[in-house]
Amino acid sequence: MPWDYVPPLADMRFVIKRVLGAPASWAQCAPFADLDLETVDAVLQEAGRFAAGVLLPINAGGDAVGCVRDAATGEVRTPPGFREAYRAFVDAGWPALPCDPAWGGQGLPLLVDAATREMFVACNHGWVMYPDLLHGAYETIKAHAGDDLKARHLADVAAGRTLAAMALTEPQAGSDLGLLRTRAEPQADGSLRLSGQKIFISGGEHDLTDQIVHLVLCRLPDAPPGTKGISLALVPKWLPDGTRNAMHCDGIEHKTGIHGSATCAMRYEGATGWLVGEPHRGLAAMFLMMNSARLHVGLQGLGHQEMATQNALRYALERAQGRAAAGGGGAADPIALHPAMRHTLLRLQALTEGQRVIAYRAALAIDEAAHHPDAARRQRASALAALLTPVVKAFCTHQGFHGASAALQVFGGYGYVREYGVEQTMRDARIAMIYEGTNEIQAIDLLLRKVLADGGAALDLWLTEARAEAAACAAVGLADFAAALHAECDAAQQATAAVAAAAAGDREAPLRVADDYLMGLSHTLLAWAFAASARAAQGAADRPWSEAKTARMRYGVQWLLPQARVHWQRVRALDAALPVLAAP
Amino acid sequence: MPWDYVPPLADMRFVIKRVLGAPASWAQCAPFADLDLETVDAVLQEAGRFAAGVLLPINAGGDAVGCVRDAATGEVRTPPGFREAYRAFVDAGWPALPCDPAWGGQGLPLLVDAATREMFVACNHGWVMYPDLLHGAYETIKAHAGDDLKARHLADVAAGRTLAAMALTEPQAGSDLGLLRTRAEPQADGSLRLSGQKIFISGGEHDLTDQIVHLVLCRLPDAPPGTKGISLALVPKWLPDGTRNAMHCDGIEHKTGIHGSATCAMRYEGATGWLVGEPHRGLAAMFLMMNSARLHVGLQGLGHQEMATQNALRYALERAQGRAAAGGGGAADPIALHPAMRHTLLRLQALTEGQRVIAYRAALAIDEAAHHPDAARRQRASALAALLTPVVKAFCTHQGFHGASAALQVFGGYGYVREYGVEQTMRDARIAMIYEGTNEIQAIDLLLRKVLADGGAALDLWLTEARAEAAACAAVGLADFAAALHAECDAAQQATAAVAAAAAGDREAPLRVADDYLMGLSHTLLAWAFAASARAAQGAADRPWSEAKTARMRYGVQWLLPQARVHWQRVRALDAALPVLAAP
Repeated sequence: MPWDYVPPLADMRFVIKRVLGAPASWAQCAPFADLDLETVDAVLQEAGRFAAGVLLPINAGGDAVGCVRDAATGEVRTPPGFREAYRAFVDAGWPALPCDPAWGGQGLPLLVDAATREMFVACNHGWVMYPDLLHGAYETIKAHAGDDLKARHLADVAAGRTLAAMALTEPQAGSDLGLLRTRAEPQADGSLRLSGQKIFISGGEHDLTDQIVHLVLCRLPDAPPGTKGISLALVPKWLPDGTRNAMHCDGIEHKTGIHGSATCAMRYEGATGWLVGEPHRGLAAMFLMMNSARLHVGLQGLGHQEMATQNALRYALERAQGRAAAGGGGAADPIALHPAMRHTLLRLQALTEGQRVIAYRAALAIDEAAHHPDAARRQRASALAALLTPVVKAFCTHQGFHGASAALQVFGGYGYVREYGVEQTMRDARIAMIYEGTNEIQAIDLLLRKVLADGGAALDLWLTEARAEAAACAAVGLADFAAALHAECDAAQQATAAVAAAAAGDREAPLRVADDYLMGLSHTLLAWAFAASARAAQGAADRPWSEAKTARMRYGVQWLLPQARVHWQRVRALDAALPVLAAP
Repeated sequence: MPWDYVPPLADMRFVIKRVLGAPASWAQCAPFADLDLETVDAVLQEAGRFAAGVLLPINAGGDAVGCVRDAATGEVRTPPGFREAYRAFVDAGWPALPCDPAWGGQGLPLLVDAATREMFVACNHGWVMYPDLLHGAYETIKAHAGDDLKARHLADVAAGRTLAAMALTEPQAGSDLGLLRTRAEPQADGSLRLSGQKIFISGGEHDLTDQIVHLVLCRLPDAPPGTKGISLALVPKWLPDGTRNAMHCDGIEHKTGIHGSATCAMRYEGATGWLVGEPHRGLAAMFLMMNSARLHVGLQGLGHQEMATQNALRYALERAQGRAAAGGGGAADPIALHPAMRHTLLRLQALTEGQRVIAYRAALAIDEAAHHPDAARRQRASALAALLTPVVKAFCTHQGFHGASAALQVFGGYGYVREYGVEQTMRDARIAMIYEGTNEIQAIDLLLRKVLADGGAALDLWLTEARAEAAACAAVGLADFAAALHAECDAAQQATAAVAAAAAGDREAPLRVADDYLMGLSHTLLAWAFAASARAAQGAADRPWSEAKTARMRYGVQWLLPQARVHWQRVRALDAALPVLAAP
């Protein structure tokens, strides 16, 4: 029973074409006007082949061997096969997929890029960490760096010939970047000299590329305190004159998972860098890329869940233990027939497929926000992308970890040993709930900035779209899906009104219920995804496939959506008496 | 910020004395008639000192180094310090704590033993795996072995001079022991010759003791197929004549956690053993010890949760990030003041303390079932122990893992790296959801064997006790606790009636809802634990402590009990349409 990966191409195509109708959107956006679904199919097929054929075979070894740092030089050696896989990745043009053709990119939609990322990370999260930051760095440099810096680095970053690292966290400054201390002294030649220590820097040092550009959050001498005094600098490992910059990897972390990713403690000792964007406006420059970066992390959760789910199903169909009431004859039935396992597997399938719809919808919104010719449509798409992003990040990564753990349970004792891949998937998946803003930070972002700040306008926009889907379901005889979706929309609206009313007189109220709010709204989105998928499946030519899809989505409506009530109930309770904790 | 363990002695004493009134029960049971609470305090204090002072310091090393097997000899070396710690453990008399003084034991209640186990496992789960099986082996040999075997092994097992292993699982026989194939051929001298392969044998081979006795499930030549043809044999590593028995460790597993525990693949090649109990009645002999073994596993979940919770709280009180609405001044507030972290920590505290009450109640029931002079009381206690045990096993281990993960989240990125202990706690905790009967098996055991089989009689007994607690709460002004507990009892009764009615015509119905049933009933027990704790806290002399305790229990009532509705709703739905899964 090998751990394997079958790229979920059929479901991806179903979501992209039937559920989201992305090709119609592409036809309206100039950069994608000539894109057809056959091209996308070919890209995804090739990406799936790369994921399963190149990345998966080096995944377990990456976990077992990990990265090795030379204590004398600070150089980091990645696990066996990582260099070769990265070279093949660059040669095939994968890094440049969604980049501007003007900078050597292929100009494909982020939605297509998202589907490739889902597959890559499913097969090797540790390896994916290196190129994962490229696109964010590309966007940041493209939007904010001066022409010199762009000319020096942008094409190499787009193509993946140079890798990038984001240097934000310091020992005392994690979720609270306002506390960071790294200093940048302006020099006569326009450059900066940076001094400070950063931790948890993914890919701060490695052997996949010669050049590594660090995007470093820092303070100029005249910086005001807090988050309003943070600037962004580009600090390359190799300077334009070919000398090594004064930056050093002091150590790499030993972590629960993603052992193949070098998580570096970096020391900048008068390192040379250049300002990116305006002085003291570094956070704004980095936040530009936040939506896509957080979407990427959500896709990590989705990829892990797909991986764990399909392997658990294969195992459950083969492993025979005990007699199932629903089963046939013989000494023992496949455990997939046992009701407890059917619950686990259907839950995993419904959540994976539902979350794929939600995550891809967010990617489509980011594409439309950037490229749709209609300004009003761009604005709506932008608001929707902003609303969906924290949900995708938190909900998909929550489920990526908990789903992998549920899948591990299907394997019984075999799930707990290393020779099956599910325990690595579970360990790797855990980090995504933490980085790129913890899931608790996402919840606050969602409720305070994305829902309450605009008086619920973006949410209403979305709920209108969801209710239209419910009406469409009702019109084609999917009454149970329609009713469930309307009920979830009602619940979301009522809870939002309750929080908005309370927030006026009680500043802490939204913060007390933010996590439940995010989980509640995640279920509203799930209800929409289940309904839209069931309706789209009606048109499929393959009837058995269509019926099985509808059955999975119906399982989601019946068994998963009830969880929303608990979250909304807690949101509406708004408990003012949440105790403050004292030392034991 | 070191990872540390402060034994929760105050809460243990509170539960044992105030909530459960155990001393009154001891006074009625002959073996404990002379036991006083001061003695118990002293025992627990010493156990806490051993856990924190001896076991914790070798815990991280045990994880990092793990066990090493000599490929040539099959001998297994445990991690540094494990042998010395085990010697100190035996010298202090810990293994014999609950054993019969006639066999060298100290005759203390299982309840006291349970509290020591909670502390030991919290500090070093990998190490605890070795002595953890002793008591089960002691009970099995004492009840079922012949006088010769007892004379040869029982005193050594009671004292821990000999360690024991349970050899059940085979590659094709995990949850379904009916599929096992290991053969035992009777010999002329009354011994057996065993041949077969076993996997996942904890402590099958190690260097902590010279002698290791294996209790091996096997088939005699005339055995009927399935579970009715399984016998139990005692197979010692060293034979009475001093020769090495024909049993060999073929390999040890590389696991997600509990690296210090040697999980062995064992090969018996005509190994000499002796029958324990009747032929073909091996499962019955092993099931005798099932209640206490499953209670022990539940205590593992509890121990991990206590460990993770107290460390997360200490970290959250020290780590300063961002401004909390509830906070004071300064550049940043302790994260313990942030509402999201208050939720996480209060949830962890309420669950840990509530589950301690439930688990210790089960231990008290086992003690009373064995030793109470009143036969009717013994029978009631026995039924209650049988009912509570699968809940304690599944609910506490579920939460041991998920609670450790929630605690890890409090640490942010630091939680994901090895130098803090929380990620090891999370990894170690995961196994307890699987072994000693997966949590799904526990749910089936609970609903089919413990609830439906006796027409709900044992459950009614328990609900009567719970409703009496509710009435007592109402009488002292804890109206909200009383109302919540009554509501949870109502929900449990209604759902049970619905399942019982459906089961008559639909054999699969209980199996479809067993997991939700167990989670639902777990919340009924929690409601009782919260109420009983709040009422008991009213009598405490330390007012701030009492108020904080009541606030935590009230948090549980308000924020945790609503989850029960989802579970009971799904139980009542009894969905007959749960799809059967097909190959992808």
